Amino acid sequence: MQRAAILLAAGLGTRMRSSLPKAMHPIAGRPMLNHLIAACEEAFDRIVVVTGPDMPALERAAAPHATVVQRERLGTGHAALQAAPALEGFEGDVAVLYADNPLIPAATLRRLLAAREGADLALLAMRPADPARYGRVIPHEDGGIARVTEWKDATEAERAITLCNVGVICAAAPRLFAWLRALRNDNAAGEYYLTDTVAAARAEGFRAVAVEADEAECRGINSRIELAAAEAAVQAALRERAMAGGATLVRPESVTLSWDTVIGQDVTIGPDVFIGPGVTIEDEVRVHAFSHLEACTLRSGATIGPFARLRPGTEIGAGARVGNFVELKAAVLGEGAKANHLSYIGDATVGARSNIGAGTVTGNYDGFGKYRTVVGEGVFIGSNATLVAPLTLGDGAFVAAGSTIAADVAPDAMAFGRARQENKEGRAAAFRAERRPVAKKEKP
Amino acid sequence: MQRAAILLAAGLGTRMRSSLPKAMHPIAGRPMLNHLIAACEEAFDRIVVVTGPDMPALERAAAPHATVVQRERLGTGHAALQAAPALEGFEGDVAVLYADNPLIPAATLRRLLAAREGADLALLAMRPADPARYGRVIPHEDGGIARVTEWKDATEAERAITLCNVGVICAAAPRLFAWLRALRNDNAAGEYYLTDTVAAARAEGFRAVAVEADEAECRGINSRIELAAAEAAVQAALRERAMAGGATLVRPESVTLSWDTVIGQDVTIGPDVFIGPGVTIEDEVRVHAFSHLEACTLRSGATIGPFARLRPGTEIGAGARVGNFVELKAAVLGEGAKANHLSYIGDATVGARSNIGAGTVTGNYDGFGKYRTVVGEGVFIGSNATLVAPLTLGDGAFVAAGSTIAADVAPDAMAFGRARQENKEGRAAAFRAERRPVAKKEKP
Amino acid sequence: MQRAAILLAAGLGTRMRSSLPKAMHPIAGRPMLNHLIAACEEAFDRIVVVTGPDMPALERAAAPHATVVQRERLGTGHAALQAAPALEGFEGDVAVLYADNPLIPAATLRRLLAAREGADLALLAMRPADPARYGRVIPHEDGGIARVTEWKDATEAERAITLCNVGVICAAAPRLFAWLRALRNDNAAGEYYLTDTVAAARAEGFRAVAVEADEAECRGINSRIELAAAEAAVQAALRERAMAGGATLVRPESVTLSWDTVIGQDVTIGPDVFIGPGVTIEDEVRVHAFSHLEACTLRSGATIGPFARLRPGTEIGAGARVGNFVELKAAVLGEGAKANHLSYIGDATVGARSNIGAGTVTGNYDGFGKYRTVVGEGVFIGSNATLVAPLTLGDGAFVAAGSTIAADVAPDAMAFGRARQENKEGRAAAFRAERRPVAKKEKP
Repeated sequence: MQRAAILLAAGLGTRMRSSLPKAMHPIAGRPMLNHLIAACEEAFDRIVVVTGPDMPALERAAAPHATVVQRERLGTGHAALQAAPALEGFEGDVAVLYADNPLIPAATLRRLLAAREGADLALLAMRPADPARYGRVIPHEDGGIARVTEWKDATEAERAITLCNVGVICAAAPRLFAWLRALRNDNAAGEYYLTDTVAAARAEGFRAVAVEADEAECRGINSRIELAAAEAAVQAALRERAMAGGATLVRPESVTLSWDTVIGQDVTIGPDVFIGPGVTIEDEVRVHAFSHLEACTLRSGATIGPFARLRPGTEIGAGARVGNFVELKAAVLGEGAKANHLSYIGDATVGARSNIGAGTVTGNYDGFGKYRTVVGEGVFIGSNATLVAPLTLGDGAFVAAGSTIAADVAPDAMAFGRARQENKEGRAAAFRAERRPVAKKEKP
Repeated sequence: MQRAAILLAAGLGTRMRSSLPKAMHPIAGRPMLNHLIAACEEAFDRIVVVTGPDMPALERAAAPHATVVQRERLGTGHAALQAAPALEGFEGDVAVLYADNPLIPAATLRRLLAAREGADLALLAMRPADPARYGRVIPHEDGGIARVTEWKDATEAERAITLCNVGVICAAAPRLFAWLRALRNDNAAGEYYLTDTVAAARAEGFRAVAVEADEAECRGINSRIELAAAEAAVQAALRERAMAGGATLVRPESVTLSWDTVIGQDVTIGPDVFIGPGVTIEDEVRVHAFSHLEACTLRSGATIGPFARLRPGTEIGAGARVGNFVELKAAVLGEGAKANHLSYIGDATVGARSNIGAGTVTGNYDGFGKYRTVVGEGVFIGSNATLVAPLTLGDGAFVAAGSTIAADVAPDAMAFGRARQENKEGRAAAFRAERRPVAKKEKP
Repeated sequence: MQRAAILLAAGLGTRMRSSLPKAMHPIAGRPMLNHLIAACEEAFDRIVVVTGPDMPALERAAAPHATVVQRERLGTGHAALQAAPALEGFEGDVAVLYADNPLIPAATLRRLLAAREGADLALLAMRPADPARYGRVIPHEDGGIARVTEWKDATEAERAITLCNVGVICAAAPRLFAWLRALRNDNAAGEYYLTDTVAAARAEGFRAVAVEADEAECRGINSRIELAAAEAAVQAALRERAMAGGATLVRPESVTLSWDTVIGQDVTIGPDVFIGPGVTIEDEVRVHAFSHLEACTLRSGATIGPFARLRPGTEIGAGARVGNFVELKAAVLGEGAKANHLSYIGDATVGARSNIGAGTVTGNYDGFGKYRTVVGEGVFIGSNATLVAPLTLGDGAFVAAGSTIAADVAPDAMAFGRARQENKEGRAAAFRAERRPVAKKEKP
């Protein structure tokens, strides 16, 4: 029996005050929608995403899953129904989820599907610490549930119920779509409510049950403040996973991780480290404070930072070292190579054991194209060198400090590109004698 | 009817262990005193600040409001009385506040003034979660209050009272000063206590009432630990306001804001960002992690950081980009201009669409004066360039990588200021052969 | 009467998932073992550390204290007994402690020793908020304690006891070793348990008592998550001490300190500052955000950061200034000297009032040895200068911007080491005309 998920992602997120569709706001470096898709991919065979009009970014994020557009905003029941054509002929179970409840794990989705096997409709519910104004789930005398009532429509007795509606619903596709088609919008908001399907099912004599989930999993995200709270919860889980795996996070609360960060054993991550998506850190790597990593790989025993910036496409070789105020972009640093101070290495390959001096800059851009710098093995680049790409430095080459190098250097050759020094005796004293009164006059 | 506030700011802050007057310690980038003045300016017509002797910084901070000096430290009643000459002939209501209770909002001050209308004296009070050793406010049978008693003088029954004294008092000026003049100092500390005016008023048959305020608003700051706690509370409020306004703060708890920070909509602020006073961030700006901003303006769509430092007087044009390890000081970056890596741009104007190469430095100082660098539109500056100010680069100019440029460059001209490269074949190998045994010998 | 401590430090820390011995994991920059040794040095005359095989780092960390190796892992009783030969003939009291309970303060150890005077054996115990699965301390009718029972062996009644075992034991050496030798390992784990000595003592008619300690002091560290929690607790205490001493920590929760950090009065430390071991900060120093300090001294009135990196061996003179993206390593900056922007100053001495221009780099390494740069007083170094060590710049010398300086400069002399500038009119326009179509073609 196939299973399908319909993800409602058409929300504009008015309370987010954003021109970005709500489902595209990221948590731990991944859009909400993709968090939910990832969980659904573990529990469902097919996924259909319901977007709003003019949300191309959302359609790209949903790919390769099908998307359908809800053109009018007539409520959650109406939104779910837009997926019906995309699931034409589908006979299996279908669950309807919300992109702004993106942290429901696959295990909970499987429990929902399992509960559906024992009833005709299964609803996800929770018992929050503060039930507040959540819709309440009204029990049925058969041990299942009778219906869902909005807080504002609930009686005092109903408000005393602690089981609250999450809104996620699961039923066989043909029945669910039939119930959705029969929904009425004769309520204050004039909307078709997905959760009215519970009463609809009961009215036809079907059985509905609730599956209780953890409140934290069911966290809805409707504002930037709630987004930050969700980020904090996901970060805490990611940090705990890294520590359990054998990494020391000196002050874990100060470290930002991403949903896909891979961290090995006996890794040490200092305070105030930012790790964006796509980062792999192998065993025994040290990442010092104030480092900023994105889409890069750190091989075993590498040491990074403090104040290192690794941009996408960078690979730091085993035992290599990147120091402070150093930026690497699409750069491969060979085994044991070093770039310890104040450098920009972009679009470059640096061979094993080479040493990049302080202040070295690769000129990889001329205003039009980007060019590569290839540094061989065992190369020594002196301080404040400028390497104008495209450029190749052979193995064992040596670049003198302060040089601008625009032509290739052969292996084992030494390259100079700096002016001869001239000292003018007494000139500094003379300059000061001349400047001092002027400087005084310049002051207002 | 005019209203006046007397702000007691003479405290040395012994427990702060500081040579700075207590009221000058900043919260969210603004001295405590100025937080209180800002609230008072909304609720009062006149403000008089009571300072201690030799506190010129405090007098400057209080300007344009009047200051008077309390020369002897004889208690809060004595301090408040020092303001009497400055309010000579003033007939309206006067409230006495404390610079080390700086977070009382204008709304609460207005409630205090309103309560005064219904009684002869109004006292600010609170019900803290832990009443601890606060003075207790003793109720009067007429529904008002009878007096304030210090905790150490209170009976067990009085200590059971949960309404605690904040100390802020409001009454008509002539009466208040009369009560203050009649205060006695026959207590253990030998001080004149402002809050004894409550009993004094009652003794003369006047009516006194309490206005309850929130504990958090009434936070007193007597140590650096309490200062840090106040900072945390104010930061939390500032962050929440920014998020409610449509900005994403990825990890809000890691962001430092200032009292006057202006943040637009669809702005994203990464983790570990520091924003000092005087910063305006327009819509759709991205501020990446580890950025440090002070007194600068970021136009719509600009992108900053990570590791960007914007110093006072800087303006980043619409869609412009400042990258890592870049410092701008009193610099205007035109629309779409870029300074992406390892640069210092000081006292400069950079035209639209110009590109500042990695490692570029403006030499704006010669040990005596500061000079400006003017970069036109569409200029390309190669890597590791040194721009010796005063200097003008015309529109469309191009500076070769590694150049030192000390003379103006005409529009569309190309400027070189670097030595010709020389490669010496085999010289690096020879150097290594020579150095290796020496280096070994040098080791102990 | 002499007192000795046996510290059990043989643990591998399987749950740490580390190749480092558990006792070597640092808290606030110091290995757990050394935290415990420091407390023990205040309360005991002799210390013997029990390590596991092949733990040379642990032996070095324990020095000058004696170490003995536990070759087989047969339990805590067996481990403690390994110290017997090292304490041959010792008649005084001996306490057994655990390196993974490293935060017990000397005061608590002294209470333990005092309790031993009133009984034959003293055991450290605590009443944790959640007794969970800790071993329970069973009371004796004489007011002391009868024995310790593991949670899994405890009856329901015993589990209701809230006094829990910490495991630290103190008794006269001859008796303790006799009890340890008589221990049996007929339990589920087949191990010799140190805490079985309580029952052993009672069985021989001796009296045992418990000393209650604070739960936080007795924190055991068995995983990286517990390590992070201990770090957080120690950091909180260090920050509070700094603030009580008269330093402002703007956002204390974002500052990392070390166990030995010395901070003076009226110091301000901005958010996101990292201070490693060996740092002394004198009065009235300002450390701005994003600064990283290790083993260095900041003299009175110095200003550092933001984005400053001070590496070991650095000393910043009174009133001197280190700005952003500046790294100092084994460098002494004289009184009032400045290095404000984008510089690397390594193995150098900079005289009073000298100014290091933006982008200055000392080339202190040639691939083999390290060399010193000596900068005199009142020297001015222009922007983007490269100083090739060994090098001496005399007092009052001036280095022109963009220069590479490899030869000494006399006092008051001016040194140039840069090429003459050439401007080619119209060349930039021609270059763009040529590059533009090519750049377009290069795009796929």
